[in-house]
Amino acid sequence: MNKINPLLAAFQQTGFPVGGHGKRNIQVLIEALQEVDGNLESDIYGTGKLIEDFQAEMAAYLGKESAVFFPSGTMAQQIALRIWCDKKGVKKVAYHPLSHLEIHEEDGLKELHHIEPILLGEKDRLIRLEDVLQMKEEIACLLLELPQREIGGQLPDYAELAEISAFCRSHGIKLHLDGARLYEVLPYYQKSAREICDLFDSVYISFYKGIGGIAGAILAGDETFTKESKVWKRRHGGDLISLYPYIISASYYFKQRLHKMEQYYEEAKELAAMYNQVPGVETKPLVPETNMFHVHIDRPKEKLESLLIKLYETTGVGLTHYVKEVHESSCCYEVSIGDRYANVPKDELRKAFEWMDRNLRES
Amino acid sequence: MNKINPLLAAFQQTGFPVGGHGKRNIQVLIEALQEVDGNLESDIYGTGKLIEDFQAEMAAYLGKESAVFFPSGTMAQQIALRIWCDKKGVKKVAYHPLSHLEIHEEDGLKELHHIEPILLGEKDRLIRLEDVLQMKEEIACLLLELPQREIGGQLPDYAELAEISAFCRSHGIKLHLDGARLYEVLPYYQKSAREICDLFDSVYISFYKGIGGIAGAILAGDETFTKESKVWKRRHGGDLISLYPYIISASYYFKQRLHKMEQYYEEAKELAAMYNQVPGVETKPLVPETNMFHVHIDRPKEKLESLLIKLYETTGVGLTHYVKEVHESSCCYEVSIGDRYANVPKDELRKAFEWMDRNLRES
Repeated sequence: MNKINPLLAAFQQTGFPVGGHGKRNIQVLIEALQEVDGNLESDIYGTGKLIEDFQAEMAAYLGKESAVFFPSGTMAQQIALRIWCDKKGVKKVAYHPLSHLEIHEEDGLKELHHIEPILLGEKDRLIRLEDVLQMKEEIACLLLELPQREIGGQLPDYAELAEISAFCRSHGIKLHLDGARLYEVLPYYQKSAREICDLFDSVYISFYKGIGGIAGAILAGDETFTKESKVWKRRHGGDLISLYPYIISASYYFKQRLHKMEQYYEEAKELAAMYNQVPGVETKPLVPETNMFHVHIDRPKEKLESLLIKLYETTGVGLTHYVKEVHESSCCYEVSIGDRYANVPKDELRKAFEWMDRNLRES
Repeated sequence: MNKINPLLAAFQQTGFPVGGHGKRNIQVLIEALQEVDGNLESDIYGTGKLIEDFQAEMAAYLGKESAVFFPSGTMAQQIALRIWCDKKGVKKVAYHPLSHLEIHEEDGLKELHHIEPILLGEKDRLIRLEDVLQMKEEIACLLLELPQREIGGQLPDYAELAEISAFCRSHGIKLHLDGARLYEVLPYYQKSAREICDLFDSVYISFYKGIGGIAGAILAGDETFTKESKVWKRRHGGDLISLYPYIISASYYFKQRLHKMEQYYEEAKELAAMYNQVPGVETKPLVPETNMFHVHIDRPKEKLESLLIKLYETTGVGLTHYVKEVHESSCCYEVSIGDRYANVPKDELRKAFEWMDRNLRES
């Protein structure tokens, strides 16, 4: 854990890291606190002006009746699904095979809530309307993740989304939005958060992805739903006496970055185009639909790592701090565009890709 | 929620509030961050120097092999009990009828973990050795809370504690310590935290009671136990990408206040003695065993509230911000001694109790 890998070490030395907003260090919190009055009272177990005001602001932004601040999305989403299952008396939900709940939560949904997930669609593509129409199992809730992170942040068309929503409504299936990256999808759809959330019964959003806060999440829906979610929040051990470090930073970076999502999206398309000009390199999706995409490179892991380290040392541009093996002869990594991209001089970036092109051919 | 009650309002106007460390405002966090280098890297999902160092420090302090930082004690304790139940294959535990798990957690232990609690002893007294010896049910774990908060912070003798521990060890029952206020019991026992924790298989401690941090908890035990607790922490949604706001403040106030526990304890005894001189007023316990105690006053709630408001306005001393009805004609409230007590001039305090004595007689 304390041994740093050479690619990460080389990345940290670069003058021009390309992805994200910046380092995840304590300065992120210090900055968020700079204009806060020290006399401001803490939230107390989910009550008080500080948390209630932010919840009201987020409910309005999402166009929902009510919103609750949670320490994590893992907690918020399990609880949303539990509430919908209890309401219908059916302990089954459906989501994508690469949903966060399926691959990153140690089976909390199954172990704590005894809810059985139906994996809808295929790992390498989005859930489609046909998948929903053809579902044979009775479920209480369908969870859709916008964008689908594990396949590079792909998005269904709005029309298809609306059809899925209409089907669920007419068939007594609740529709829940995993909107960890909801802000990031708005430029693609050219719609407001409210317009997207209108299609869903419950919505979760996160504050440390595109927004760049420290941690924390909002779960929104109607009053009955959020009231019940607070009981489960306490049961999970998430009703902390004070959540304000996360709320203050969420609120601060929300204001700082919400209006930049269009910019990040355009920059992601620009950067992906540079990648796709290099033979043996392809982004997924080819044209990004949000501020994120995956990069696939046809080289074995070790070879690619040495090549990237040399690229960083030669050009000063840092493309990624890790690579993941896909097959023996190919790798991938995720890119999310944030504040940093605008600080990378276009010339340096172009030189880095020229270097990559030349050296990949030779390797 | 936004309407402040008159007693709280009057309390907040007093120049000499008697209990606690100070206001729960944002300054608590700002102060803790003052000497922290902004370049210090965040913990990431339970890893990194910041969290690992603190966990190691707490493990050493508690004399346990390993320790894990949790956002809350609610989460940490449910998980401890779940692990011990799974290990034994018995889904029963025992604890006091007024345990935090029974009265403050919306039945999380039952609803999430399907563990059945046996309520041991009586509401108005401590769990005794006989209660444990006479237990008929087979349980996986016995939870003891030191001190027993809801009865004024009472403590069993160390010898009795050691006998309970020996019995559990010889009967295959795990012993878990709810040590939310562990530091506060050390002056009474005249023992180190390690010496107390030696009697227990697993230990939870908190950082926002006596220590006065923002939130957060440590769960400690052997390596196998804490490793498993991390899996459950993720399932509960407690494995946040960053817990540093709580860790930094826990560490800061731990250093600031750990050595003051003896002082708080002596002050609690001094203050309780003043209460007990007033007819119709009694503290529970009569002589405090930690820095906390409960005050019982033989007056109806409304009457007592008006009297206290007048006391605050006349003397400037704030004794409590709330009172709880026990019967129609009697009330109680909790007092915890922290940094504030030392700032109350003894003369003013004496005058306040003289005023109380005089006016209670007349009321």
